[in-house]
Amino acid sequence: MTSIRLLNEAQLRQAVALDREAVACVEQAFQALATKAVSMPPILRLDIPEHHGEVDVKTAYVPGLDSFAIKMSTGFFDNPALGLPSLGGLMILFSAKTGVVEALLLDNGYLTDVRTAAAGAVAAKHLARDDAKKAAVFGAGVQARLQLKALMLVRPIEQAALWARRPEQARSTADELSKELGIPVEAKDTPRDAARGADILVTTTPAEQPILQAAWLEPGQHITAMGSDSPHKNEIEPALVAAADLYVADRRAQCAALGELHHAIAAGAVPADFEAPELGEILAAQKPGRLDRTQVTLADLTGTGVQDTAIATLARAKAQAANAGVVFES
Amino acid sequence: MTSIRLLNEAQLRQAVALDREAVACVEQAFQALATKAVSMPPILRLDIPEHHGEVDVKTAYVPGLDSFAIKMSTGFFDNPALGLPSLGGLMILFSAKTGVVEALLLDNGYLTDVRTAAAGAVAAKHLARDDAKKAAVFGAGVQARLQLKALMLVRPIEQAALWARRPEQARSTADELSKELGIPVEAKDTPRDAARGADILVTTTPAEQPILQAAWLEPGQHITAMGSDSPHKNEIEPALVAAADLYVADRRAQCAALGELHHAIAAGAVPADFEAPELGEILAAQKPGRLDRTQVTLADLTGTGVQDTAIATLARAKAQAANAGVVFES
Repeated sequence: MTSIRLLNEAQLRQAVALDREAVACVEQAFQALATKAVSMPPILRLDIPEHHGEVDVKTAYVPGLDSFAIKMSTGFFDNPALGLPSLGGLMILFSAKTGVVEALLLDNGYLTDVRTAAAGAVAAKHLARDDAKKAAVFGAGVQARLQLKALMLVRPIEQAALWARRPEQARSTADELSKELGIPVEAKDTPRDAARGADILVTTTPAEQPILQAAWLEPGQHITAMGSDSPHKNEIEPALVAAADLYVADRRAQCAALGELHHAIAAGAVPADFEAPELGEILAAQKPGRLDRTQVTLADLTGTGVQDTAIATLARAKAQAANAGVVFES
Repeated sequence: MTSIRLLNEAQLRQAVALDREAVACVEQAFQALATKAVSMPPILRLDIPEHHGEVDVKTAYVPGLDSFAIKMSTGFFDNPALGLPSLGGLMILFSAKTGVVEALLLDNGYLTDVRTAAAGAVAAKHLARDDAKKAAVFGAGVQARLQLKALMLVRPIEQAALWARRPEQARSTADELSKELGIPVEAKDTPRDAARGADILVTTTPAEQPILQAAWLEPGQHITAMGSDSPHKNEIEPALVAAADLYVADRRAQCAALGELHHAIAAGAVPADFEAPELGEILAAQKPGRLDRTQVTLADLTGTGVQDTAIATLARAKAQAANAGVVFES
């Protein structure tokens, strides 16, 4: 018999927020990926075309952490018509020493939202100019909101532009974000308008055709592309990947399969063996990051199992300290 | 908010046993694999060498089933020294239509034990001679016991031989099985002795060197090799794979990567494109099975996600009908 802690979404929201602690947690995860003997197998992907459904399973073992998470993310795109959210999932925490199940985190995707936005903050913290003040966000979903919030944790953001495919949604999201974050957030009519003059650009869409063009680049910009997590998604023009002074992957092999790098290689814009340092390698000072105020940097984030193990471990620790959830024997 | 049913090992043992119903459930799963548009991605495997630990994640979507399972199996081989079992794990049932989590089956590997043994019964039912009376079991663990029990569900087994690496354990297991199953089960000193005269041979070990040799084959024998589930494991001499009249895989690609077929191909005993019908194709009469009483048949079972989805669906249905477990909202 072992004791298992069961935490639901409300309890996990109470335990973990998108704040500096979450960013530090994900930052350490990337650092570990570069400096420790992390085990992180390729993503398991199940498709259920009959119901427009897909499931991704991610995991990673990080030496030094007592637990590892297996995370199951669901995306069922007919759900809105049924009054259900498209995205969901849960995480399971196991003892890294014995494999015993320690906690069930029924977060419905909340912890994934947090760790994904936190990775955006980590990328900006290590790649964007220190004085970046103007953000541009592409998309109007949960990540559009969280990514802007995440940038404000690491850079002195004073204003933001927002573009989304549906203008009405762009306007309402911009209005809500203005109120919530206390900075002016303006909806723009075109991606071009949103990109102009921005110091940090974050793409958060499921686009299948590039939104950002190489010709729009301005010196000193940092771009984080976090929308693509499967081979058919593409937010960044292949030429932009080649034109950036520094391209950074969250995980090289994964970006070459699922990220913007995949499309840049397929289009012949960069060679298959394109130099692609990982975010963790830059954090760990194993590879150079931004060299000056004029370089253009591009972070390609596909989402990694180390982020899941890190955020799940943090969530469980905080929930346990608060004695949240129920404990049962099995 | 959705309702999730939580079932522990005791409740699942109450709900599902290794019986004809479980065998029929797994039989249907293999049939579906051959006849329906099943989605079954490759296994996700996480290794934690630091603690001699490994985790396999399997899943499959079977059209026609309302749910699919994701199964996590743990093997942590330092556990016995800590007073814990080496093997464990759990299954999660999701709605195939919405991806919503429906049930958490905290079975500690019990359902895997049942569906694995049931697959042995399905293989024997469709490949062994109808009048097979004498079984030989190699190994003395949980599967050695369950596989013999499973054979008795589908063939008129009257006696059994048992060999295991540790003679004492072989003797005690043989004694216990004699009492439990009501047939004479005799421990043998060598694999050769155990194999002699057997109608059905089942290997259930984590051997890394072959236990069964081609030279020992007798006309009409059926062999099920179910111990190997990773590339370094090997129970069957490569020459035996070539010498058998009929080789059958549970899943061709998986056996070529993880099963006995893997070693036979690596050794050059059979070509890389070796004809390897799947068990489901034989059940569905898409490929011929045993042609006469003298053929030697060999089933290579590495364990498939469809078995997990099938047994998890059965277990949840039976537990729900008995109103077992607890239901909570998340």
